Amino acid sequence: MCGVFGIFGHPEAANMAYLGLHALQHRGQEAAGIVSSDGEKLFAHRAMGLVQAGFTPRDLAGLPGDRAIGHVRYSTAGGSHIKNAQPFAVDYARGSIALAHNGNLTNYESLRDRLEARGSIFQSTSDTEVIVHLIAMSTHMAVEDRIADALNQVEGAFSVLFLTERELVAARDPHGFRPLCLGKLTHGGGVAHVVASEPTSFELIGAEYVRDIAPGEVLIIGADGPRSVFPFPEHKPKPCIFEYVYFARPDSALGGASVYEVRKALGERLAKEEPIAGSRDDTVVIPVPDSGVPAAVGFARASGLPFEMGLIRSHYVGRTFIEPQQSIRHFGVRLKLSPNRAVIEGKRVVIVDDSIVRGTTSRKIVKMLRDAGAREVHVRISSPPTRWPCYYGINTPTRDELIAATSSIEETRDYLLCDSLGYLSLEGLASSVAQIRTPGKLPVVKDAVNSHCHACFSGDYAVPVSTRKSPSQRPRLVSAG
Amino acid sequence: MCGVFGIFGHPEAANMAYLGLHALQHRGQEAAGIVSSDGEKLFAHRAMGLVQAGFTPRDLAGLPGDRAIGHVRYSTAGGSHIKNAQPFAVDYARGSIALAHNGNLTNYESLRDRLEARGSIFQSTSDTEVIVHLIAMSTHMAVEDRIADALNQVEGAFSVLFLTERELVAARDPHGFRPLCLGKLTHGGGVAHVVASEPTSFELIGAEYVRDIAPGEVLIIGADGPRSVFPFPEHKPKPCIFEYVYFARPDSALGGASVYEVRKALGERLAKEEPIAGSRDDTVVIPVPDSGVPAAVGFARASGLPFEMGLIRSHYVGRTFIEPQQSIRHFGVRLKLSPNRAVIEGKRVVIVDDSIVRGTTSRKIVKMLRDAGAREVHVRISSPPTRWPCYYGINTPTRDELIAATSSIEETRDYLLCDSLGYLSLEGLASSVAQIRTPGKLPVVKDAVNSHCHACFSGDYAVPVSTRKSPSQRPRLVSAG
Amino acid sequence: MCGVFGIFGHPEAANMAYLGLHALQHRGQEAAGIVSSDGEKLFAHRAMGLVQAGFTPRDLAGLPGDRAIGHVRYSTAGGSHIKNAQPFAVDYARGSIALAHNGNLTNYESLRDRLEARGSIFQSTSDTEVIVHLIAMSTHMAVEDRIADALNQVEGAFSVLFLTERELVAARDPHGFRPLCLGKLTHGGGVAHVVASEPTSFELIGAEYVRDIAPGEVLIIGADGPRSVFPFPEHKPKPCIFEYVYFARPDSALGGASVYEVRKALGERLAKEEPIAGSRDDTVVIPVPDSGVPAAVGFARASGLPFEMGLIRSHYVGRTFIEPQQSIRHFGVRLKLSPNRAVIEGKRVVIVDDSIVRGTTSRKIVKMLRDAGAREVHVRISSPPTRWPCYYGINTPTRDELIAATSSIEETRDYLLCDSLGYLSLEGLASSVAQIRTPGKLPVVKDAVNSHCHACFSGDYAVPVSTRKSPSQRPRLVSAG
Amino acid sequence: MCGVFGIFGHPEAANMAYLGLHALQHRGQEAAGIVSSDGEKLFAHRAMGLVQAGFTPRDLAGLPGDRAIGHVRYSTAGGSHIKNAQPFAVDYARGSIALAHNGNLTNYESLRDRLEARGSIFQSTSDTEVIVHLIAMSTHMAVEDRIADALNQVEGAFSVLFLTERELVAARDPHGFRPLCLGKLTHGGGVAHVVASEPTSFELIGAEYVRDIAPGEVLIIGADGPRSVFPFPEHKPKPCIFEYVYFARPDSALGGASVYEVRKALGERLAKEEPIAGSRDDTVVIPVPDSGVPAAVGFARASGLPFEMGLIRSHYVGRTFIEPQQSIRHFGVRLKLSPNRAVIEGKRVVIVDDSIVRGTTSRKIVKMLRDAGAREVHVRISSPPTRWPCYYGINTPTRDELIAATSSIEETRDYLLCDSLGYLSLEGLASSVAQIRTPGKLPVVKDAVNSHCHACFSGDYAVPVSTRKSPSQRPRLVSAG
Repeated sequence: MCGVFGIFGHPEAANMAYLGLHALQHRGQEAAGIVSSDGEKLFAHRAMGLVQAGFTPRDLAGLPGDRAIGHVRYSTAGGSHIKNAQPFAVDYARGSIALAHNGNLTNYESLRDRLEARGSIFQSTSDTEVIVHLIAMSTHMAVEDRIADALNQVEGAFSVLFLTERELVAARDPHGFRPLCLGKLTHGGGVAHVVASEPTSFELIGAEYVRDIAPGEVLIIGADGPRSVFPFPEHKPKPCIFEYVYFARPDSALGGASVYEVRKALGERLAKEEPIAGSRDDTVVIPVPDSGVPAAVGFARASGLPFEMGLIRSHYVGRTFIEPQQSIRHFGVRLKLSPNRAVIEGKRVVIVDDSIVRGTTSRKIVKMLRDAGAREVHVRISSPPTRWPCYYGINTPTRDELIAATSSIEETRDYLLCDSLGYLSLEGLASSVAQIRTPGKLPVVKDAVNSHCHACFSGDYAVPVSTRKSPSQRPRLVSAG
Repeated sequence: MCGVFGIFGHPEAANMAYLGLHALQHRGQEAAGIVSSDGEKLFAHRAMGLVQAGFTPRDLAGLPGDRAIGHVRYSTAGGSHIKNAQPFAVDYARGSIALAHNGNLTNYESLRDRLEARGSIFQSTSDTEVIVHLIAMSTHMAVEDRIADALNQVEGAFSVLFLTERELVAARDPHGFRPLCLGKLTHGGGVAHVVASEPTSFELIGAEYVRDIAPGEVLIIGADGPRSVFPFPEHKPKPCIFEYVYFARPDSALGGASVYEVRKALGERLAKEEPIAGSRDDTVVIPVPDSGVPAAVGFARASGLPFEMGLIRSHYVGRTFIEPQQSIRHFGVRLKLSPNRAVIEGKRVVIVDDSIVRGTTSRKIVKMLRDAGAREVHVRISSPPTRWPCYYGINTPTRDELIAATSSIEETRDYLLCDSLGYLSLEGLASSVAQIRTPGKLPVVKDAVNSHCHACFSGDYAVPVSTRKSPSQRPRLVSAG
Repeated sequence: MCGVFGIFGHPEAANMAYLGLHALQHRGQEAAGIVSSDGEKLFAHRAMGLVQAGFTPRDLAGLPGDRAIGHVRYSTAGGSHIKNAQPFAVDYARGSIALAHNGNLTNYESLRDRLEARGSIFQSTSDTEVIVHLIAMSTHMAVEDRIADALNQVEGAFSVLFLTERELVAARDPHGFRPLCLGKLTHGGGVAHVVASEPTSFELIGAEYVRDIAPGEVLIIGADGPRSVFPFPEHKPKPCIFEYVYFARPDSALGGASVYEVRKALGERLAKEEPIAGSRDDTVVIPVPDSGVPAAVGFARASGLPFEMGLIRSHYVGRTFIEPQQSIRHFGVRLKLSPNRAVIEGKRVVIVDDSIVRGTTSRKIVKMLRDAGAREVHVRISSPPTRWPCYYGINTPTRDELIAATSSIEETRDYLLCDSLGYLSLEGLASSVAQIRTPGKLPVVKDAVNSHCHACFSGDYAVPVSTRKSPSQRPRLVSAG
Repeated sequence: MCGVFGIFGHPEAANMAYLGLHALQHRGQEAAGIVSSDGEKLFAHRAMGLVQAGFTPRDLAGLPGDRAIGHVRYSTAGGSHIKNAQPFAVDYARGSIALAHNGNLTNYESLRDRLEARGSIFQSTSDTEVIVHLIAMSTHMAVEDRIADALNQVEGAFSVLFLTERELVAARDPHGFRPLCLGKLTHGGGVAHVVASEPTSFELIGAEYVRDIAPGEVLIIGADGPRSVFPFPEHKPKPCIFEYVYFARPDSALGGASVYEVRKALGERLAKEEPIAGSRDDTVVIPVPDSGVPAAVGFARASGLPFEMGLIRSHYVGRTFIEPQQSIRHFGVRLKLSPNRAVIEGKRVVIVDDSIVRGTTSRKIVKMLRDAGAREVHVRISSPPTRWPCYYGINTPTRDELIAATSSIEETRDYLLCDSLGYLSLEGLASSVAQIRTPGKLPVVKDAVNSHCHACFSGDYAVPVSTRKSPSQRPRLVSAG
């Protein structure tokens, strides 16, 4: 997963991008970058790690101009290296161009093979780079036509921003897998247009949400303001339902629906689908913080059980940690979460989380709760079992690593060492989303399910996926510095 | 505020200290350090910033031995410089000694004057250094006698750990202002003894809480295990009540009482002392995360109002942030907290926080909530007005910066721009603590109030305080590198 | 100017390259890099600055395999940025390839225009990159044919090394502008073949000089040992005569001739062409260290005057130096050279240097010598006036900055503030080189002059030069990090 | 060995110190530091490594005021750690004081024992720190009296600069072991007084040499200009003769005598004492650069043999170098020196160096010359055999590591693998110095010998030396960061 941010028409464009990226930091912590333009040149700075760590005042001062795009990268395809950091920026025959991409191209390998056979040389191992080569080779003259030409050749998921000397272009693939929204920011010198993965980044800079970019829309923002074209064949929209479950920030709204309210509704629905049996006097509902909090609030409310912060999250956990040689029980999870013994000891604990991937962390949490004195541990998950990998931009492991793909629910319960395990149904998930998106209207369950991508739960992929590796077994070049 | 950690008898002593300090990181983020010993030499490493950032595997490998003490520093007296980082470690005539101090010495200036007049040269501007000089000059032979001799000359608050080649010594001042507790860790090779500011650091390394170190106790841990002496004149214990309100981690227990349960009780009591009048249908209780969460849970429960996460806390806020030149409304607070519009818009919002210092942040939060559509904003504080500076180790500002010292509650409400403002009473605070410390027993309010230090609320200082600056107007030497 | 080094068949290939580059450090201090191969992958490390500073033991350990090429870069075309550091290494359709280039391509701009129009995207602003694109687009199958195909399209100066997974290829342009030589190194496991800009780098690793790579030769070193092809149209060899005057290390031999002996011969010849008139009792010959030392030894010997170290060179001058605001006389030169008053005061000083470019340094030296008490200062230069820029790989300034291009010798003498100024003639220079190259044989002056490139003295360019800038005014992209 | 520099009365005092230290860089490369004062406070910056690397423009800007002292450190007693870097600066009861010391205190251990027993705590393991403690404990009021009091208690060698808020004090021990000289610098705002280890540092900043500070002199420079006192018992001056042989820069003058001229005279005398027998037609004189150059010039001139640069010194050798696993012959010396085969091959080579310490380098040089084709190798050393360690500030190894202390000259010749070996006599050395110090006057050999310290050659120590280690076996504290 990644996050993108763009702004056009603001005297401190790079600084706004820096703040906008900070508000999207949850979408990617591996690398961050900004490319700005003063209308004549493009200026780029990229760094590994968090936005805040990667940019000094001097770096920002080196990014002049009233337009900029930025990117935060979550390690997906291509490996962790500064050369894969985005925005990707190059000079080519028609000028300079930069792009920031959230998504994943499913036909990357075959496109790269075709381009290399023609003599193209790739600088990165990121799928994003094929878009640049396709633009450079396009026979169209106008940049927007070259972009449309290039994007019509790629398949998969893309919410992508382009910056040239003159224009900022935002494009969302015809299925609209990944979010992208438009806002505006009134400032002393006029109105700036902003685009971002989530509206939460508008909030920080004082901008106002206008609307979502539509699936299949290409929005060109130039000196005359924004205008839209729709150069792709039409498809049924399939926005990712997992953004509601986990990825987006709770204070975001996607497709007009509050992510926080959706999550609470998931918890409420889950309490009905998978209630806790038996005595309730000594039962507590505990979220896995922070992502499980809204669902736990909903679950507690719907079930009439007390909500307690039974796991305390450390604010100080970074990427690397020196482990002792002598092993410590549940070490990995303990660094991040610590049991609040006072509310656990002697209790029946209902632990609410958004999803289970490999199951290893959940298992450690259950054991840690038991060690802290929990009498029973009941696990409740506010989404269906995650059984399929995502090929549209979320970095899920392969099927054989997904516990729900290889084990039954009963086997999973055994592995997690919990007393009971309950998942939300796909229908329950989709209906809850629909109910918040169109409040007061009773959702038709089938329509609700069909109007999102839920491949990670159902294996129902809207765009065919090839997992073939290229015969050349790239990359062969190992570069450092 | 600072945190200390010590361990004796573990083959990976420095690594355990590193983990223990990580679990105490909330007590100080300015600097961190560890001194270990192999029984012959002392080995020291100190660094500015967080524990995790300041120690590489190589640094830890340079700290051999089965005993170690560590320190995390919150910038208090002395200024931010590596030379003030702790543990403070020196060679003197009798060997090497290191110490890690949580607290503040009220007679530092006069002691330093006296020592300098005698020819002593100070390396730091930290009050902790006088203890070292007093030990070096003591005429006693045994280290523990030298320590007792030195500590009998200082006044104020100290929970302090000493490490020599042979012993780990833990001392708590006779009033017991700052917490200090003892634990043990059974490992392959035997039993290690651990001491720390809070038991939460025992949890991470799998150690078990044994008891609090008593006010006035000096505990000497050597090859024969721990033994205690009480070398100070007796005083009535005055543990800091603010640790319960804000400073300690919620999963800690101090004096045997769960901090989380105390905070919930404060919220419940606050709901009774300062209830919200008027219609309740559109009223929500919102914590200022994370410190306000337990009290908000208690408040919501006692008042029957819904608890909602109306402010989303960013996990990615570090120390420095590049601000734009063009000002952004509520910028400072927005970086850290962002309003969750879906639960705020059109609502009466009760915002629960632990304390108000200057009032500037609270004011920004109120304004941000109103901007996000709150119809009314009611501020509830789970402690009394903070009217006096702390001279016993917490870094509070001077009286003229404390809004509660300079303004009436009504004036404060005007400044905060909120519809109502309510604080918990000192009696309510003390009774709530007492009720959790001795459950099932009805607390005598006067006794409850008297059994803690509450000088920050009452101005009632247990140890006299001199704020006189030394005539020599130290420091004159400005050193970098 | 730059230096290149390659080795094939040594178990510590990267370490040998590191040492070889150290011995070529005088040819470029801006950046250094090594690419190695284990026969399957290429491994790259490049860094700004000196070889020694840019490579840690860990960096070298990351460069496995028995073959490697390396490069030290002197800032020439393209600007100072890590992306212009070499070896340049890429993946393309046929595998991976790296190259290290000493020289300058005179038709770079038109080649780049042509390639970009076709859709190629450039990663750097270095002329070297066009060679890679031409190889990637070649329709030949064998790497050596693709290389020959590419090199037949470029014009100018190139001594270039290529590394693929299987072969090391060394190519020298048909004029042989820049040096390139072959050696071999017998080690425990067999014989390694080495190529380098100068044989001095063989000395350090214990390798033995075999022969110079011939102008127009392409040497392919694979598992079966080296073999040569000559794929270019034949041209009269024109090795750079300035390598003898200044660039090469004195302990090198180029074209079989000792550089040190050539320089001494230049000094001897100079003493005859431009003798010092007047009393000789109080006259001393002083070199500008270190490059002027051999010529000064020759001059002193031929003229019977004492040789003295009248200027002491500091070993500690790096790239940047903080200047005081209040100006210091001759500051820039004084940091590097300091006058040895004892041998200057009251003397007639003959100062011997290899060349004068802008004249500013020489002027400062003359003034500094006079300040130190020199009665007269006579400047003698062991080469002709430098009147033309070099387009074949040496970074000379434009004509209007060359003092000899804009001023007569008399005007130059006035500017330098010296009592007399004498240059060596082109005939004298060429004859001296010839006399060392073929000792015992009386050189034919005209042949001697014709058998080298001396364009910087004569303006006689062997390959036509276009100084046209591309219409696209590259680069537009400014990238940092 | 170390170097010191001080300046009083210059608006850019710290910048001048920075330049002065650069010119003294040959006296110490381990660490550098500057302390400045604006008359009210002292400002300090110290860093490991070279002056140029350790000071940024921002560091210098942090050193305001019109007076400063600086230090370059050569690793001697105390070990390599920033805490041992100088100037040493502290606050004490009477204000702040900094000091920069060149020399070595022979009674350091017993003084430290005495001070620690009294309760003093040491910050460093450098002998310099005892001076500070003695000053802090002095019962005198005036700083100069406290300094005199302290210095009267130490024994050994000290050329030391002190800086307080008001005064710069320069002191040289009564024997004057280490050099110290006075200069002045006229600038826009008046006259600044400068003191330095060698006058060469005056040259760089445009200052003028005034005189040497006399042995036993304490010079106080304050607002009213400099004034001298002589607070020590009188001793016969014993300036170090090895400064002439090796340590000082050739363009310096010590005791009024040009170091370069002394070294040439040593070479001339050596040619007479230890001539080269046999045929002279194919014999060359080669210096070990750079320190052997002046003596080789003198030797060549006196013997009528040609002077040639037969060893080329690399300008790029730093402290650390990654060695290959497979050993390379003479690797260590080859990195720094490379043989110039053209002048060596087939020749009888006379190699001139200033001294032999362990003999390992000389042996490698001889072998390298033979490998490069030398027919015979004759070693000539321009000083007597180094047989005794220096206890007065030069970092010589212990006796058992000095080849001349453990082997006869014949055994040394065998070890070095050379055809002949000749040292200069102590009488020859002393007479040559005397002849340059007082030209035109025939020196009395005995007086010449007696008027310098030559303990490293003769074992004749002017101040008794205790090599006893303190019973406490300091240091026990190992600190990093």
